[in-house]
Amino acid sequence: MADTETVTAARGPAYPTTTAAVAHRPLGGRAVRLTGGLLADWQQRNHVVSLPLALRQLEVAGNLDNLRLAGTGVNSGYRGPAFMDSDVYKTLEAVSWQLGRADDPALAEFAADTTALLAKAQQDDGYLNSYAQVTGRPRYARLETSHELYCAGHLIQAAVAANRSFDGGALLAVARRFADHLVGTFLGRQAGLDGHPIVETALVELYRETGTAAYLELASQFVDQRGHGLVGDSGFGSRYLQDYRPVRESTVMAGHAVRALYLESGVVDVAVETGDSELLASSLARWQDMVAAKTTLTGGIGSRHSGEAFGDAYELPPDRAYNETCAAIGSFHWNWRLLLATGQARYADLMERILYNGFGAAVSADGHRFFYVNPLQRRDDHFEDDDPGRRREWFSCACCPPNIMRLIASLNRYVATISGDALYLHLLGQARVTAPVTDGVISVDVSTDYPWDGSIELTVVSAPASECGIAVRIPAWSAGVSVRLNGERLAAEQGEHGYLLLRRTWQPGDVLACSLDMPPRLTYPHRRIDALRGTAAVERGPLVYCFEQADQPAGLSVEDIALGKGDLAGHALTLAEVGRTVVVEAGAAILPAAQLPAAQLPADDRNQLPYRPEPTGTDQHSAAAGRSPVTAVAIPYFQWDNRDGQAMRVWMPCDRPEDRATSQDPAPSRAPFPAHDS
Amino acid sequence: MADTETVTAARGPAYPTTTAAVAHRPLGGRAVRLTGGLLADWQQRNHVVSLPLALRQLEVAGNLDNLRLAGTGVNSGYRGPAFMDSDVYKTLEAVSWQLGRADDPALAEFAADTTALLAKAQQDDGYLNSYAQVTGRPRYARLETSHELYCAGHLIQAAVAANRSFDGGALLAVARRFADHLVGTFLGRQAGLDGHPIVETALVELYRETGTAAYLELASQFVDQRGHGLVGDSGFGSRYLQDYRPVRESTVMAGHAVRALYLESGVVDVAVETGDSELLASSLARWQDMVAAKTTLTGGIGSRHSGEAFGDAYELPPDRAYNETCAAIGSFHWNWRLLLATGQARYADLMERILYNGFGAAVSADGHRFFYVNPLQRRDDHFEDDDPGRRREWFSCACCPPNIMRLIASLNRYVATISGDALYLHLLGQARVTAPVTDGVISVDVSTDYPWDGSIELTVVSAPASECGIAVRIPAWSAGVSVRLNGERLAAEQGEHGYLLLRRTWQPGDVLACSLDMPPRLTYPHRRIDALRGTAAVERGPLVYCFEQADQPAGLSVEDIALGKGDLAGHALTLAEVGRTVVVEAGAAILPAAQLPAAQLPADDRNQLPYRPEPTGTDQHSAAAGRSPVTAVAIPYFQWDNRDGQAMRVWMPCDRPEDRATSQDPAPSRAPFPAHDS
Repeated sequence: MADTETVTAARGPAYPTTTAAVAHRPLGGRAVRLTGGLLADWQQRNHVVSLPLALRQLEVAGNLDNLRLAGTGVNSGYRGPAFMDSDVYKTLEAVSWQLGRADDPALAEFAADTTALLAKAQQDDGYLNSYAQVTGRPRYARLETSHELYCAGHLIQAAVAANRSFDGGALLAVARRFADHLVGTFLGRQAGLDGHPIVETALVELYRETGTAAYLELASQFVDQRGHGLVGDSGFGSRYLQDYRPVRESTVMAGHAVRALYLESGVVDVAVETGDSELLASSLARWQDMVAAKTTLTGGIGSRHSGEAFGDAYELPPDRAYNETCAAIGSFHWNWRLLLATGQARYADLMERILYNGFGAAVSADGHRFFYVNPLQRRDDHFEDDDPGRRREWFSCACCPPNIMRLIASLNRYVATISGDALYLHLLGQARVTAPVTDGVISVDVSTDYPWDGSIELTVVSAPASECGIAVRIPAWSAGVSVRLNGERLAAEQGEHGYLLLRRTWQPGDVLACSLDMPPRLTYPHRRIDALRGTAAVERGPLVYCFEQADQPAGLSVEDIALGKGDLAGHALTLAEVGRTVVVEAGAAILPAAQLPAAQLPADDRNQLPYRPEPTGTDQHSAAAGRSPVTAVAIPYFQWDNRDGQAMRVWMPCDRPEDRATSQDPAPSRAPFPAHDS
Repeated sequence: MADTETVTAARGPAYPTTTAAVAHRPLGGRAVRLTGGLLADWQQRNHVVSLPLALRQLEVAGNLDNLRLAGTGVNSGYRGPAFMDSDVYKTLEAVSWQLGRADDPALAEFAADTTALLAKAQQDDGYLNSYAQVTGRPRYARLETSHELYCAGHLIQAAVAANRSFDGGALLAVARRFADHLVGTFLGRQAGLDGHPIVETALVELYRETGTAAYLELASQFVDQRGHGLVGDSGFGSRYLQDYRPVRESTVMAGHAVRALYLESGVVDVAVETGDSELLASSLARWQDMVAAKTTLTGGIGSRHSGEAFGDAYELPPDRAYNETCAAIGSFHWNWRLLLATGQARYADLMERILYNGFGAAVSADGHRFFYVNPLQRRDDHFEDDDPGRRREWFSCACCPPNIMRLIASLNRYVATISGDALYLHLLGQARVTAPVTDGVISVDVSTDYPWDGSIELTVVSAPASECGIAVRIPAWSAGVSVRLNGERLAAEQGEHGYLLLRRTWQPGDVLACSLDMPPRLTYPHRRIDALRGTAAVERGPLVYCFEQADQPAGLSVEDIALGKGDLAGHALTLAEVGRTVVVEAGAAILPAAQLPAAQLPADDRNQLPYRPEPTGTDQHSAAAGRSPVTAVAIPYFQWDNRDGQAMRVWMPCDRPEDRATSQDPAPSRAPFPAHDS
């Protein structure tokens, strides 16, 4: 059993100081151990498959060679884009979080060797950037595109992770030297801003780790300098760079999604460390804008390929959804900070949505391949330039794979928080959770098959002598939950911000069992999302489902399926290549033949365009008449593209709501307390 | 009255040789004079406003200075992208077509001065490219991006236009010297292919103008070399460059839309001049692919911003439709060539659709501003990077404005053709048309208020002594047409390929009157176009309509309008800034309040996402219940964005077809002969 010291010694990402204005505090890094289930499997896969792949790719792509060239003062031979160092740093951060979970000599060797490489490449005044050093480009001369502070930020994040996970003092020293150089160069001046934020949150984290106030001051300065046109012209405009409006005045999410998201983590970090509620409020306003009108069902963001950018409000096409994996990660990091700042379940809800859907899909079932772009629909014969849109081992711009790895390696650190004398469970995986409360330590075992099953059983392993709280997030999607304490059903009671909170003097062996109804359900889009008009999606628990061609009856195209009123039934299965899953069988219909394909149109039919004066047969609204019933099969979205590479859809043409209203479906049962929207 | 010589002396774009395998032949350049109405107004606006603007911009942007630098051998100071010369050539082509219509001393001076400038800049061996000459880049070393043959192609086109329109011998000599250099460099070798086609069609036109077979041979070689990976890597992949599959084997339109379209003009030109029916068939197959699944209602093509490319089949989002103006022009040029090759009305139908919609919208009502991108929907507060998506005077990549000008200046040359002993009218504007037939010349005055009105009256001005034909295209959209000859109603009779064809011994004063029913109508999308599910659009005659915010009742957002079952009524109006128009009043409904905007959601509502478990109020399908009737106003799409810059929609949420089927709308009347699809 862990004692208080162990629990607090290893800290996780975004670890506010004791004076920060936060509602919740994270636990120490070894306070949560994922003991089984999907998230534990992901961490294992990440450790065994993905991280070794990254270590190889950093050699193949030349990232480490670039640093070696910088270390030996060679002035040619640099390979790749300007931000190649950041892939090294993100991998190092992933390795650090992994070493925080368990020893691994090979990873520890990589961390030590790379740290030594960085220390050698670092210049005397603390500056470190292989691109500038090897190519001889002047420092900080083109910050709008050079990514120098971006790389510095990732170096700092890696060093903080190392220091919070194992003996990372050597890497922290490298990061501090660079940070001190940044303070000397930028603090109190208008000396430039990086086109790609991340140094802001990194500097706050370094302040948290070291207590050096100048780091926080520089982060704060960078946040407030943004939006005044100080970033140069990168060719994509000022929105792309979040430089078109001061942060405090901006109420919309615009421009390059990853940049916008990374900036928000810095904004919240600065706000909570300086107690700046105005700054926090501006971030919350942008969150609302993003969530209400610019987020896909999978939690993905950044709908535009061009500029990798946020689109207009309600511009959320399923097929063209860019949804960069790094944007999902950036949103996860931002939501974690908002959860700490406010304690509201909506941020944990969105973390969960991202985790199991938009983010989860970014890795192949075997851990070998990664998505950069995460659409909600793929047509047959899809091409993006010459790319068929499948996962890849690596990318010429390889920001996503090591970013995925650092999040998965740190997943356990996002499971729970402490607020006052209560332990809060946010992510509902199987875990051992140990947390300091007022009078000692509370430790619980969480036993669950989540997200495949909605039954979650907490067994108290140890508890303090006095009363303390245990809170479990009841997801917003839950239409019904029953709760038992040591077998006795608890009456409905008011949750706090979406949490079931029980406060008592816990005894070892106490069992708190929550059972979340998890029937497959249909979800409908907002009317203003033009691209989704007339469709519905299947969800089950926290999982968004998709219809892949591989699972449909022979001869049935996923493009011809309309969701009907039939029951949705889930079945646990293991599918080769996809692995364990729960498929949903959907009562559906085969839509009547659409307008004939051009090849079959009569040769004398002059109008070959896909537009007709009569809707007959060309419009899914008429699906009710003349269609054939069929059972279509859906699998979790995160498991897509592990098989044939063919068509996939999340949003399906659906029945008219009027038909639903008069159907024999029972009214949905309600939760015993209003855990979801009313 | 024109004699035969005048009629045939001045030739138009794509003028096949007498041995070419074509069903129709174009008329001479002065054979058609637009005498009034919309197309004549466009030509006048182009002459008086747009062309002078282009002449100014070529100085401001540096295009002419680049050529001056090249002419004096200066090796620095080049401005703009590599293809700046092409803007000069396109403007020169536009000026040439304009001079073919009427004398203009200022334009003639520009043509003479620029021709002299080009002759001076041209190198001794015929090579001419200000980018390569001023920057010192090696010739033909990076053809995938250098646009050297692309610029050569536009030079040749300008020279052909000059030679067909006025005394353009000096410019033709420059073009021939360059073309001879190209023949010497490329013919019979694998010496490279330009990343951007157009030289293919240009070389065929130069062959037509000069009789030099080597130009046709080189064009044919370039067509057949494409698709074998000979174009280098431009970073966008081989589809982008139409280099992924041999032209004869390719059945789909893919990659950069403008490049793909320009190539097709060359393919058809080569096919008809060499009698290569296999090559023509491949182009027809790609036409079918484009028209059936990759063309917007406005005739626009290239749905993706990224790569300015064709999307997948049925990937046709209205809001993100890229629809580059140059692609519409390229499609117009291709369809003209297919019309000549086959004589089928479907190609003229598409030319008309492009002309009055996707292309027509590219110019502001006052002729001063231009669209590069032509979406079918714009939301309020739209931004593309920092651009609010309105027309602009010029662009850093200024391919579109002078391209628009060259098409408008030559519009009269696309109005009619001759086939055997019959004159065919394809574009139905007010005009004097004179054509050589077997026994002389037939000349008719076309009197019409088209496209505002469907009445078209042809009065024979002169006719040969023997029988000949007059054919009028009956557009595919027409649901009813009545025909009178000298006041007597003609019985329904079979048209040829969509043309009303009357063959008789015509007398001067004979009047052939066609009256096309032109009620506003609803058009429905193919079911597979996901982005348009549950919508309909208003069309009237050849015009696609749109709903702009400026025309709606106070307080009614275009985002809240659903088209209802009410009658659609058209009214002629003049709107300030838009000019003359026919508005359509649509019986519509105000949709019930959608899900509350996030700002109004209860603060404790955890689900702020635009996705709900119940469709109530969030789905337009429920529009029938609880909505309020309203009259919404639409104007022709080509007239949009001349006022407030706010929201616009072409496709509107609509009633269910079942409701329509039981409505009291009369069944549409049918045409007396099957002019449209059955």
